[in-house]
Amino acid sequence: MAYKKTKFSLLIMLLYAVYNSANAFEVLQALPETPIIPKSNPQTEAKIALGKQLYFDTRLSKDMNYSCNSCHNLAAGGDDDGAATRLKDRDINRSAPSIYNAAYQTVQYWDGHARSLEFQAMEHILSANYMAMRSEKVLLDRFSQIPGYVEAFESSFDGGLNLMNMARALSSFVRTLKTPDSDFDNYIRGNETALNESAKRGLHLFNEVGCMACHFGVNFAGPAPGPAFGMGDGFYELFPNYLGSKYDRKYKLTKDTGRDLITKDRGHKYMWRVPPLRNIADTAPYFHNGSVYELDEAVRVMARTQLKKTLSDEDVSDLVAFLNSLTGKYPQISLPRLPETPGVSLTNQRFQLGE
Amino acid sequence: MAYKKTKFSLLIMLLYAVYNSANAFEVLQALPETPIIPKSNPQTEAKIALGKQLYFDTRLSKDMNYSCNSCHNLAAGGDDDGAATRLKDRDINRSAPSIYNAAYQTVQYWDGHARSLEFQAMEHILSANYMAMRSEKVLLDRFSQIPGYVEAFESSFDGGLNLMNMARALSSFVRTLKTPDSDFDNYIRGNETALNESAKRGLHLFNEVGCMACHFGVNFAGPAPGPAFGMGDGFYELFPNYLGSKYDRKYKLTKDTGRDLITKDRGHKYMWRVPPLRNIADTAPYFHNGSVYELDEAVRVMARTQLKKTLSDEDVSDLVAFLNSLTGKYPQISLPRLPETPGVSLTNQRFQLGE
Repeated sequence: MAYKKTKFSLLIMLLYAVYNSANAFEVLQALPETPIIPKSNPQTEAKIALGKQLYFDTRLSKDMNYSCNSCHNLAAGGDDDGAATRLKDRDINRSAPSIYNAAYQTVQYWDGHARSLEFQAMEHILSANYMAMRSEKVLLDRFSQIPGYVEAFESSFDGGLNLMNMARALSSFVRTLKTPDSDFDNYIRGNETALNESAKRGLHLFNEVGCMACHFGVNFAGPAPGPAFGMGDGFYELFPNYLGSKYDRKYKLTKDTGRDLITKDRGHKYMWRVPPLRNIADTAPYFHNGSVYELDEAVRVMARTQLKKTLSDEDVSDLVAFLNSLTGKYPQISLPRLPETPGVSLTNQRFQLGE
Repeated sequence: MAYKKTKFSLLIMLLYAVYNSANAFEVLQALPETPIIPKSNPQTEAKIALGKQLYFDTRLSKDMNYSCNSCHNLAAGGDDDGAATRLKDRDINRSAPSIYNAAYQTVQYWDGHARSLEFQAMEHILSANYMAMRSEKVLLDRFSQIPGYVEAFESSFDGGLNLMNMARALSSFVRTLKTPDSDFDNYIRGNETALNESAKRGLHLFNEVGCMACHFGVNFAGPAPGPAFGMGDGFYELFPNYLGSKYDRKYKLTKDTGRDLITKDRGHKYMWRVPPLRNIADTAPYFHNGSVYELDEAVRVMARTQLKKTLSDEDVSDLVAFLNSLTGKYPQISLPRLPETPGVSLTNQRFQLGE
């Protein structure tokens, strides 16, 4: 196991290891009812409703053809089936992670460079590869022409309509996007029959083989957030941990070097945020580059590259049965009505801005 | 007035003119509770639910990045604010018409070349400029791997999963997308206070200036469908009717020659289906090419190019007030859950097919 070497103290790792061996499955838990809500952005019904409108609004993107939901599809697994990586006019080479339960993550992005949903939302709006709005000014020039938004921001936030408050509203909505009550959740809460025999064997293998050394906690993505765990920077793994298998080339696993591109720290080469496993069956393709199309193959790749193990077909099948049990109950979502600008197309504004 | 010269008999036009002059506003009516349902595709709850899933499913497009809802956004006016015409990888030069109340149209597309929603849906799925599925075989190879769809089609249709039945399911859903109870509807049903004074003046101007000669009927788009009106081919207008105004060049009104591109009949040059006006305030930009961004400007352009009239600012304002009254009540729509293929990405299939 190659844990992140900086910022995460060896002492805490040791405590975890002891805890882990003593009460293996106590490091697993049912999805808590709510994620942690930051004090700087308390949940309100008005903010959640506003965030939902923004989430579905293509006017948040430069060309008005993508909304958040385009790549984090709430009608499916909260992802895009790898579609964004195939966009010819963008330079997106990482698979869109699911937005469901993202609020339970300590950090956002595959390389974990956003410590909050709010930061992630702001960056997505302004990044050339996502919403591609040129600046906050361009964004506000557009949205200030939509009276419904202007009024809703005035009444929901100090400061009214601005980029930070748009990010806050989006984050408030995203904090409602959770999928509780998976078969696994029901099992861990004490319903012995919630998992079938294969899934139960899979759960035990998940611990014995070594998967759970990294995939534990609320979201199967490492320790829960909070200062007690020193998790401000997130929980990372070297991937591939054991180089040299046939998978490296087959799935181009080392083409993207991961977190070092952000930190400029050579020690972070091939370091990736441990990805969450809830709803994993609904979020193919797998890995940062979306190169693996089937869950059973992803299990084989992980066993070999991370643990230097080759699993029997039966073990793979049991592990997949367990992973299938992590699919939760998706919320029923009503499509919002987006505020209109009656009699006016904002398209024009784009050209007025000389873009 | 330049009515469509072929297929629509002069006798019927004459009858309409007499009827029109005798009871001007009787050619207008509130939105009927349901559009005409074809005998070949009766509505069922199962088909509507299935059609809704397909409507929101990006797997219906080749690259899995567009759904019907991408360009006919049900959270907004059922259109895309002109976004599709700006897609660099497609060759779409006509503005996406609203899907709301489309079922009340006699024919579909700006040039009216589809006589049914079913035909339109099939064509959209296979057309290189829309969903771009290469063939029905490619489509079925993909969808036959989604058990939820296979089962739903088996139980909803004779013949199970095939292109025609997908088009039928989509059409069944689209036939539920209606926006009744606009202020105008309430007014025409007898509530005198449903329109303000400006909108009432606008309604009278709408008749007196001549707009209503073409924009009448259920959807303000001409005669209701049905054999009695010989409307199998739709109701068309020459646009621009009076060439030579400043608008021709300013808005490139003659660049696209319209229906003749389909019929190869020179008499159809610059002929366009009379567009519906319900929810017109929510469906900017205007005209077949989406070249006009404001409704008041669209009114000025229409007055000049179709009726050779120049309106006062007050008249334009009253006409816009009337047009604003055509915005109906949008349905509350719950996002469907899309059938998943647990543990598998269909992305792979795309490459297996050698695309």
